[in-house]
Amino acid sequence: MLPYNIDHVAIAVRDLDATLADMKSQYGAEPVSREIVESQGVEEAMIPIGGSNVQVLQPLTPDSPIGRFLAKRGEGLHHIAFAVPDIDAAIEHLKSTGARMIDTETRIGGGGHRIAFVHPSAFAGTLVELVEGAT
Amino acid sequence: MLPYNIDHVAIAVRDLDATLADMKSQYGAEPVSREIVESQGVEEAMIPIGGSNVQVLQPLTPDSPIGRFLAKRGEGLHHIAFAVPDIDAAIEHLKSTGARMIDTETRIGGGGHRIAFVHPSAFAGTLVELVEGAT
Repeated sequence: MLPYNIDHVAIAVRDLDATLADMKSQYGAEPVSREIVESQGVEEAMIPIGGSNVQVLQPLTPDSPIGRFLAKRGEGLHHIAFAVPDIDAAIEHLKSTGARMIDTETRIGGGGHRIAFVHPSAFAGTLVELVEGAT
Repeated sequence: MLPYNIDHVAIAVRDLDATLADMKSQYGAEPVSREIVESQGVEEAMIPIGGSNVQVLQPLTPDSPIGRFLAKRGEGLHHIAFAVPDIDAAIEHLKSTGARMIDTETRIGGGGHRIAFVHPSAFAGTLVELVEGAT
């Protein structure tokens, strides 16, 4: 069940516009998409860098997961997303290894992709997102 | 000065062997390289995922940068590395934007590549590494 790509690396920020402006001035990189994902309580933008993406997440409310992350840890790296060909198989495989899942059923993320999160306790304190059929 | 790739996403860990074992059992992914980089006080492994890599960092000593990161924040995402074609030009450009640099001169990182770190204050609390001519 090798992921075929790092779909994105996500950064939690307080000010999406300011971060996109820094991204453009510092790295010449610009978003290909920007959307509000109500189910996750975020406004997000995707910035392609080579064959992967930086995803920038701004919380819609302070009590959303990203809002609470910012209150606790401040701005910074939030999660890494692996692109997988078959997310149901990936979830079943992870469960078989004893990895603790946040989502045992998929939900719909940005771009309409099926996603699921793996608990940070499963992999070196790192929140991992599985994304089916992206990038 | 668009980076041409996300060279790697780095994770700070206490136990490199345990993390590589999790990486293999959970994701079927294995390292292509493993080395001690004395100048950075780490033992590191690179695990290719599609066109990018996960880098796993274990500190050589508690008072190294990664050792101090673990003591303060625990295991987890540490930095993101952008591959750039000309690192000297990239550093000059970043300085011209007012971005605070950790390294104003390059040093040699894993794999013998020229690298430089940009201070997290420059970009949404995120430690960014520039890597010349990798991936």
